[in-house]
Amino acid sequence: MISANYTADLCVRDATSRIVLLVVDGLGGLPHPDTGRSELETASLPNLDALAARSSCGVLSPLGPGFTPGSGPAHLALFGYDPWTSHIGRGALSALGLGLDFAPADVAARLNFCTIDDAGLVTDRRAGRIPTQECERLCAILGQVDIDGVQIRVAPEMEYRAAVVFRGAGLAAGVTDSDPQVTGHATRPLCASAVADERMVEVAEEFLRQAGDLLANESPANMVLIRGFGAYPSLATMQQAYGLNPVGIAGYPMYRGVARAVGMETPETAYDLASETQLLARRWKETPADFYYVHVKKTDSAGEDGDFDLKVKLLEEADSYLPAITDLEPDVLIVTGDHSTPSIMGSHSWHPVPVAIASRNALPMGSATFDERCCAAGSLGHIPSSSLMALALAHAGRLSKFGA
Amino acid sequence: MISANYTADLCVRDATSRIVLLVVDGLGGLPHPDTGRSELETASLPNLDALAARSSCGVLSPLGPGFTPGSGPAHLALFGYDPWTSHIGRGALSALGLGLDFAPADVAARLNFCTIDDAGLVTDRRAGRIPTQECERLCAILGQVDIDGVQIRVAPEMEYRAAVVFRGAGLAAGVTDSDPQVTGHATRPLCASAVADERMVEVAEEFLRQAGDLLANESPANMVLIRGFGAYPSLATMQQAYGLNPVGIAGYPMYRGVARAVGMETPETAYDLASETQLLARRWKETPADFYYVHVKKTDSAGEDGDFDLKVKLLEEADSYLPAITDLEPDVLIVTGDHSTPSIMGSHSWHPVPVAIASRNALPMGSATFDERCCAAGSLGHIPSSSLMALALAHAGRLSKFGA
Repeated sequence: MISANYTADLCVRDATSRIVLLVVDGLGGLPHPDTGRSELETASLPNLDALAARSSCGVLSPLGPGFTPGSGPAHLALFGYDPWTSHIGRGALSALGLGLDFAPADVAARLNFCTIDDAGLVTDRRAGRIPTQECERLCAILGQVDIDGVQIRVAPEMEYRAAVVFRGAGLAAGVTDSDPQVTGHATRPLCASAVADERMVEVAEEFLRQAGDLLANESPANMVLIRGFGAYPSLATMQQAYGLNPVGIAGYPMYRGVARAVGMETPETAYDLASETQLLARRWKETPADFYYVHVKKTDSAGEDGDFDLKVKLLEEADSYLPAITDLEPDVLIVTGDHSTPSIMGSHSWHPVPVAIASRNALPMGSATFDERCCAAGSLGHIPSSSLMALALAHAGRLSKFGA
Repeated sequence: MISANYTADLCVRDATSRIVLLVVDGLGGLPHPDTGRSELETASLPNLDALAARSSCGVLSPLGPGFTPGSGPAHLALFGYDPWTSHIGRGALSALGLGLDFAPADVAARLNFCTIDDAGLVTDRRAGRIPTQECERLCAILGQVDIDGVQIRVAPEMEYRAAVVFRGAGLAAGVTDSDPQVTGHATRPLCASAVADERMVEVAEEFLRQAGDLLANESPANMVLIRGFGAYPSLATMQQAYGLNPVGIAGYPMYRGVARAVGMETPETAYDLASETQLLARRWKETPADFYYVHVKKTDSAGEDGDFDLKVKLLEEADSYLPAITDLEPDVLIVTGDHSTPSIMGSHSWHPVPVAIASRNALPMGSATFDERCCAAGSLGHIPSSSLMALALAHAGRLSKFGA
């Protein structure tokens, strides 16, 4: 938890201050070669710039210089957990996010519906990105898989993505993926990391064999790839660690999953900011909590698709929803991202992510804009993402002094 | 010691260079809401600004982002010790600072004279801030406490504060405070952290019982609160760690205590800068040492009292004494604080503290002022306070190369 072992001891549990953490997924970017300006520097962001001008600004590094995180570790770091040692298998995040019946000793995995040819080679790892409805129908078919001594639950996620939970004696999560990651190759054999994981390999192989039979006459999704085996997470909750009563407002299942893994309540919502900010405003009044995590998904997708202009547009859209949050007058409002997703790279990256912490104890640097280069010169400096929660608690008056 | 295990091996022990570390307590602040300028930015500091312009500047974080230190951990970090693991109980710091007979296996604690009513409720945790002379008289009365097999020494500190040292078989420091922290409540029962600490609880309870009897007819100080139990510290000395011959020039007892805990000689002085700089100049000529720690107390008190204007005035006063130090021409002169104490918060805070290191090996950033925002953009960057000693030694030519 954070860097010190003392955090929980220092947390003020009877505080009444309230924190909002707005995570704009894949926030950070890089300059467009034609203009020399990043997505944030190109976008018109009047509300975020005004926020930055009254905030302590800085940049957050999810894993340290050079290391690119997935969404799971990047979020765990933002929530104050060591992203290297608190790893949760992607399958476990999906199972949690989808609200599957998933408990300690179960193992979850991600399923991607795919297309294989007669020779058994993978020709499309996403089965033409089948619609979510088709995914739902195929998941129901996979519900017929029957393995002695093992309970299996399969649930659709988005498009070609689904999750599976295995429950039975002797299951463990140390199993490699069947996804070959490239087309034109056969699926990869599952391998156990240790003797204790061998039963899981047997079960998953039998699952894949029966799935292949059940899907044989479907098109284009005639097979599944299995990946991201994960055990039920055993992290301290944010209540235990910080004495917070946290709510996660995230439409996209995986982010609800990571929020649940740290003990957040995660009410249902669509994953557009209109729905999410409406839910935030309602929950803010009806059932006050201490900590609200709000997640913006689409910016990351635009960056991953290499669509610089769309990412600019989505950042401007996010900016337009900021007043819906500032109007609630949280004691502390933090805007940042889980990681950078520069459009010119078309992928997650290691670049530090801008952060602004608005509170009455902030140290602004004067005129500021909310972007990579301005925030890098801010009063917070360059810090690990996993330090953010201590700063959030400190600005909220929720951390007491260490030592006399 | 510092971050590396190699520090002591790298220390050059036959160097003749001399280092002065001026610690302006609670140095860092935050902008005044009316002006947007911090205490340092408001004050007229011609000498400190000139020093900053020829120094390597940066900001120091005592405990990492978000964590607010007490004076003990904050000073230990400046002296190069890990502030999280080198914790010394406040009582031990007071006992050391007061020069009480205090040795390994003893346990020390802080005493606060207080007022309780007939129902046993604490009505004033500071007994109206009785003058130090009254504290001396009451400590003499507490000298009558008699517990079989235990030697007890009580000594006055400032105003309502005192310290006690217990010596006897089986004493340990894992005991909670009796101070309820708020008025209108009874004192809290002492609790042992472990079986090994139970004898100390018995002894301290008997001490409090007899103290209550001895003070029953006094007014307003008719009881003591006991807090901050601490064992004799067992840190490596600065001689052992760095090969330095260090002197601590601090008028205020607790700071002499932390200086002694790391092996400094601590000559007597009042705690105004006139007295402290005179003592420094005398010691500089008469009995040359390698390292001089000079402590300025009053800036922190002004910040804690929320008195922005007084803190500005005291910073200007500290600035006026800087020539008395620069005239000695130390090889390395460092000016910093142990932690920030923003007047607008009225308390210690987590905000990083400005630092300037003047030496012929410095890397100044050109025109500079000595304040939070200018130093945050300095060539040292944002670094842990516990890295300062390595920089001090390096700038003094007292650290050799690691590896060939």
